[in-house]
Amino acid sequence: MSEHLRPIEWTGDGIRVIDQTQLPGRLAFETLRTVDSLVDAIVRLAVRGAPALGAIGALGVALAMDEAGREGWSPARLQAEIDRIRDARPTAVNLAWGVDRVRPLVDAGVAAVVAAGLEIVAQDERVNHAIGRHGADWILARVGRPTVRVLTHCNAGILATTAWGTALGVVRELHARGALELVYVDETRPLLQGSRLTAWELAQGGIPHLVQVDGAAASTILRGLVDVAIIGADRIAANGDTANKIGSLGVALACADAGIPFVVAAPESTVDVRTATGAEIEIEMRGDAEVLAFAGILVAPATSPAHNPAFDVTPARLISAIVTEEGVLEVSSGHVPGGRPAPVAR
Amino acid sequence: MSEHLRPIEWTGDGIRVIDQTQLPGRLAFETLRTVDSLVDAIVRLAVRGAPALGAIGALGVALAMDEAGREGWSPARLQAEIDRIRDARPTAVNLAWGVDRVRPLVDAGVAAVVAAGLEIVAQDERVNHAIGRHGADWILARVGRPTVRVLTHCNAGILATTAWGTALGVVRELHARGALELVYVDETRPLLQGSRLTAWELAQGGIPHLVQVDGAAASTILRGLVDVAIIGADRIAANGDTANKIGSLGVALACADAGIPFVVAAPESTVDVRTATGAEIEIEMRGDAEVLAFAGILVAPATSPAHNPAFDVTPARLISAIVTEEGVLEVSSGHVPGGRPAPVAR
Repeated sequence: MSEHLRPIEWTGDGIRVIDQTQLPGRLAFETLRTVDSLVDAIVRLAVRGAPALGAIGALGVALAMDEAGREGWSPARLQAEIDRIRDARPTAVNLAWGVDRVRPLVDAGVAAVVAAGLEIVAQDERVNHAIGRHGADWILARVGRPTVRVLTHCNAGILATTAWGTALGVVRELHARGALELVYVDETRPLLQGSRLTAWELAQGGIPHLVQVDGAAASTILRGLVDVAIIGADRIAANGDTANKIGSLGVALACADAGIPFVVAAPESTVDVRTATGAEIEIEMRGDAEVLAFAGILVAPATSPAHNPAFDVTPARLISAIVTEEGVLEVSSGHVPGGRPAPVAR
Repeated sequence: MSEHLRPIEWTGDGIRVIDQTQLPGRLAFETLRTVDSLVDAIVRLAVRGAPALGAIGALGVALAMDEAGREGWSPARLQAEIDRIRDARPTAVNLAWGVDRVRPLVDAGVAAVVAAGLEIVAQDERVNHAIGRHGADWILARVGRPTVRVLTHCNAGILATTAWGTALGVVRELHARGALELVYVDETRPLLQGSRLTAWELAQGGIPHLVQVDGAAASTILRGLVDVAIIGADRIAANGDTANKIGSLGVALACADAGIPFVVAAPESTVDVRTATGAEIEIEMRGDAEVLAFAGILVAPATSPAHNPAFDVTPARLISAIVTEEGVLEVSSGHVPGGRPAPVAR
């Protein structure tokens, strides 16, 4: 069963992950034992997803310590290697958060760091289930239909977390309650996390879905085929502006025009209170080949360059709700159930 | 020189076209001599683009008559074969328009039909240059910058017309006036007419451009990187609602949010006064494989179905201007320079 899949495990001398570049063709596990291989796995998106990167960051510190012991690194070298992990993806705040969370434990030894990392994994699973419950409650109350039709972009499922999923955790919860009709899955170019990963998770879970090109999202929404759109987040600024996979902003604009809710589901660790607004979020620019070639085949003229931002920023005014493990913040309406003034990072 | 490329020619016993499925890797010409091969070329998008399909429809009638002579078809069979051409792509009004324009000449013989078809080709070239001039004039007056940054979706260039292009005709005109800074080219999934065809035309013409995934368009526009978006049209309803390649609507929503103009460039033959609003436009649904596989490689689970509408409809309220050979209709503002009450089809 896909929902019991464990995408991140500590093996004693490394981190076992799923090589997500192999999906949906093959479910391939890979054990990372060096900082080089870990950074490479992060950069080529073999491991990805904001919550997963939190756990990866923490366990990555243990991995670096293990390698330092084997290779006889100096303390300064170890800290530099930990920094390499921390900076491997600039937009995802969780990666740095996971590293920083366990870094004070380095002097206490590998076992202490691993224990803290595994606690992040266990906590993320609890967090995701709480997000799923809060999100499903809010959506069913807001939409007012017994079953809902959902649109999602990219992958915020098990493969992006340590279990269950955030945005897809809400979808799984709706499905478990018999309240889910259909999921429209944006394929999510350039790397197709939607068609490759989200559709794979939904197919494994027996959840009805249709894959569509990203350009179809606006039309699907304005034609009334969708009741709610729900996405994950890579970083949420203090004012609610949200960085997520490129293409998310277009979904939000369509939802605003159609008058349906646009929901962000993410652990509170995704909220970065040191970032005041989305304008301050550094957007990772990736290489041209992701856009211009597919499976080694050039799909554009050899002389044409690309513009390849990995993320976009959806302004808070377009976000109906941010769902965290603590509850639901109705961002664009200014209504904060429970009276909390703004998202607060742990 | 790309701008002198002739994408559609009558050879005496068939229609010579570019097989656009081979671009950008190879510029391959193909001569269509049977209705079967013509319909197949239309359906697999070897030939495409609303204005081009007008000329193809007209010359297709001549092709059917030639084949009828060779094969000894009855008049009823000939009319049925002409209907097959006419109905090969339901959303593109120009195809039916081209067929209907020459159909009354069938009794006058092949030469008369060919002459009428070639007049459509020559007229389309004049029309496109007029669109380019009107569009460039309007954009430069509206944007108020000496050079402009343009975003376009799909391909409304030479390859979609008989020469010069409609939306890309405006781009070429801006470039010829030294008033073009940069073109952002949406790749246009699923069939990549942007990266394969538009980027190819721009590269041939030495026009600066960047290819981006469709999901990047909203972000590029909201970040202020673009001054105007310009697209072609497959069908324009009497109220200005416009059907164009899937993904166009999302571009329009982003332009409306950012307060920059969204411009449709198309010959008046694209306006269908018998269609009152976009709600009446039949949207062609295409096969799943275009979305789920690439170059024969499955990019989604084998059990996942797709949702693959070929077009979307942008409501008139989101369209700043419709540029035709007759001038510019400022649709969403209700302002019609020249006093014409609404687009009128020829």
